[in-house]
Amino acid sequence: DLSPQENYFSCEPLDRLSAKRTDKVWLEDRQSAPDTVYLLFSSLSPMVSSSQEEDGGAAAETKLCRFTYEAVKDLIQKPSAVLIFLGVERRKNRSSSSSSQEPPAWFAISSDEDAAELLKRCREKSCSFPKTPNRDLLNLNEEDAGVVAQARSVLAWHSRYSFCPTCGSSTRLEEGGHKRSCLNSDCSSLRGVHNTCYPRVDPVVIMLVIHPDGNHCLLGRKKIFPAGMFSCLAGFVEPGETMEEAVRREVEEESGVKVGPVQYVSCQPWPMPSNLMIGCLAVAISTDIKVDENEIEEARWFPRQQVIDSLFRGARPAFTVPPRQTIAHQLIRHWIHMNSNL
Amino acid sequence: DLSPQENYFSCEPLDRLSAKRTDKVWLEDRQSAPDTVYLLFSSLSPMVSSSQEEDGGAAAETKLCRFTYEAVKDLIQKPSAVLIFLGVERRKNRSSSSSSQEPPAWFAISSDEDAAELLKRCREKSCSFPKTPNRDLLNLNEEDAGVVAQARSVLAWHSRYSFCPTCGSSTRLEEGGHKRSCLNSDCSSLRGVHNTCYPRVDPVVIMLVIHPDGNHCLLGRKKIFPAGMFSCLAGFVEPGETMEEAVRREVEEESGVKVGPVQYVSCQPWPMPSNLMIGCLAVAISTDIKVDENEIEEARWFPRQQVIDSLFRGARPAFTVPPRQTIAHQLIRHWIHMNSNL
Ligand SMILES: Nc1ncnc2c1ncn2[C@@H]1O[C@H](COP(=O)(O)O)[C@@H](O)[C@H]1O
Ligand SMILES: Nc1ncnc2c1ncn2[C@@H]1O[C@H](COP(=O)(O)O)[C@@H](O)[C@H]1O
Ligand SMILES: [Mg+2]
Ligand SMILES: [Mg+2]
Ligand SMILES: [Mg+2]
Ligand SMILES: [Mg+2]
Ligand SMILES: [Mg+2]
Ligand SMILES: [Mg+2]
Ligand SMILES: [Zn+2]
Ligand SMILES: [Zn+2]
Repeated sequence: DLSPQENYFSCEPLDRLSAKRTDKVWLEDRQSAPDTVYLLFSSLSPMVSSSQEEDGGAAAETKLCRFTYEAVKDLIQKPSAVLIFLGVERRKNRSSSSSSQEPPAWFAISSDEDAAELLKRCREKSCSFPKTPNRDLLNLNEEDAGVVAQARSVLAWHSRYSFCPTCGSSTRLEEGGHKRSCLNSDCSSLRGVHNTCYPRVDPVVIMLVIHPDGNHCLLGRKKIFPAGMFSCLAGFVEPGETMEEAVRREVEEESGVKVGPVQYVSCQPWPMPSNLMIGCLAVAISTDIKVDENEIEEARWFPRQQVIDSLFRGARPAFTVPPRQTIAHQLIRHWIHMNSNL
Repeated sequence: DLSPQENYFSCEPLDRLSAKRTDKVWLEDRQSAPDTVYLLFSSLSPMVSSSQEEDGGAAAETKLCRFTYEAVKDLIQKPSAVLIFLGVERRKNRSSSSSSQEPPAWFAISSDEDAAELLKRCREKSCSFPKTPNRDLLNLNEEDAGVVAQARSVLAWHSRYSFCPTCGSSTRLEEGGHKRSCLNSDCSSLRGVHNTCYPRVDPVVIMLVIHPDGNHCLLGRKKIFPAGMFSCLAGFVEPGETMEEAVRREVEEESGVKVGPVQYVSCQPWPMPSNLMIGCLAVAISTDIKVDENEIEEARWFPRQQVIDSLFRGARPAFTVPPRQTIAHQLIRHWIHMNSNL
């Protein structure tokens, strides 16, 4: 049921061609090619067009607005613009294609021009730069979501890391937007390879904790959640610990419950700003709950039947789970399906 | 055979008590407690004592030198010192212990005093600050290795991230050494929660690629490896990709081999400087090798029997594998054992 590729944000429609990042001539050539696709970002949001369903259906699908080089070349010239090479389209049927032509390249541009002015560049109707990414970026198709996962993570890194953490100097973009190098030639970040120059990815464990009776799972809610919503516990992997140990530590910190065996299920890139959500099932070896009130408002053991009612929208669910685009939802669904196979 | 806890660097003898990091009174109290244990670091190396085996045995065990508060309190006062709260010892037998006394706390101090002077503080014989951590930090016992994994990762972060990446200002240590905050009160890193303030952990995938015939595995060597050594391929997880996709991308980049199914096996914190090595088995769906010469000197399919000879030190192994303390070694061993169960 749950294959890793099915998580939202984890589709990879582009081949990143990382070796080309250092090939300036090739990159410049692709930048101005007529079939090159540009995505336009403002304040870390991509420009999207919403196709409101005629019948007023609830889930309006959102599509990324695509631009040609001609439509954005003035923006690329601005010194404040950030340009990222995202990759080239993967050929669907490699063998049959006899053309030696390269597949279209994709770039993301981040611009600090006035957002309303930027929107005028697009011919699609109802374009916008979504304001609440955690919600508004969940209605893309799988491919667009996969591209946004890369683009937004890298842009978010540039927006917070424009100074060298080692010496405080300014830095310069390099390698198609995948590196920043210190402008201070005495800086030790320039001697040897250091992570200060590369985008940051934060590993986070997210886990569904199963009761020792096998028939309940532990879900918690933060104050900021919509009323009635409960989700999996989660936390940042700390330096010097394994994923499994991070699961045990975070569950005990947040709920007081002790965890034994931990099993990896699947993962999901989460580009707000650049997390790698590592999804696990964990088996509890204690059951008393004592929440960390700084982080969690409430945590509870939910019986399997209540979880099924929530997932499949029974008449009056006792609580709601996060939407299907989240790995939390997929972990819960995975557990329900596992059990039903017994 | 391979349980995640058995990887070197992944033992957690301390309870990190992360909630205490913001409790200044508690921390100061523990700092000066007589049973508190201090580890001393110089240039990111811990002071260790080597117990040379009497019979000249090859593998000299290395132990962390432990200091009391009295022995290091002058160092802690120095403005350049970095002090990290590591946690408290886990009680072995919780139920039996009726004493309400808290278990000993551990701290790491990094000092920039002259290393030779620092060594004089220890009463053990043959103390040193190892110069090549990738090799010299592999001879600790499991517990000491687990503590070093946390301490060295966090210290390495402080050494490269003392300036705010968002605005270039200086920063201040907080929360027992687990946070740095910008001193510029206008900085946007102070509004909301941002990863700029927290230690960085870099997820890396490391994978043993299995030939479609099930009887060979793909190993490669970098120029810097000791002569004759081959290891698993590995690479940094990039923003916006899953672990599984990172495995496929890195294997194809480095060796030209295409990978189908990927299975997570176990992970290992690697504190040089702060990687999380995510170990996977991967099944190849193509076999032609074309190495990326910038990174890999040579990659080859090795037959199972040659791998067995290397692991168990046959008479004349065709090649050598990395030492048992590496997850590369453990992945290779895992594959051999899996097969032998068929
Ligand atoms: N890389 C990071 N990014 C953001 N917050 C972090 C990070 N590492 C640790 N934190 C802290 O962890 C808290 C969230 O807790 P948790 O997700 O349970 O680990 C945040 O409020 C921060 O105080
Ligand atoms: N976080 C990082 N730390 C160090 N090097 C990185 C990082 N991210 C990307 N790199 C680059 O990746 C190269 C190593 O390749 P790989 O380990 O195969 O991904 C390094 O030489 C750097 O150019
Ligand atoms: Mg949490
Ligand atoms: Mg945490
Ligand atoms: Mg937490
Ligand atoms: Mg590599
Ligand atoms: Mg790489
Ligand atoms: Mg590589
Ligand atoms: Zn610098
Ligand atoms: Zn700042």
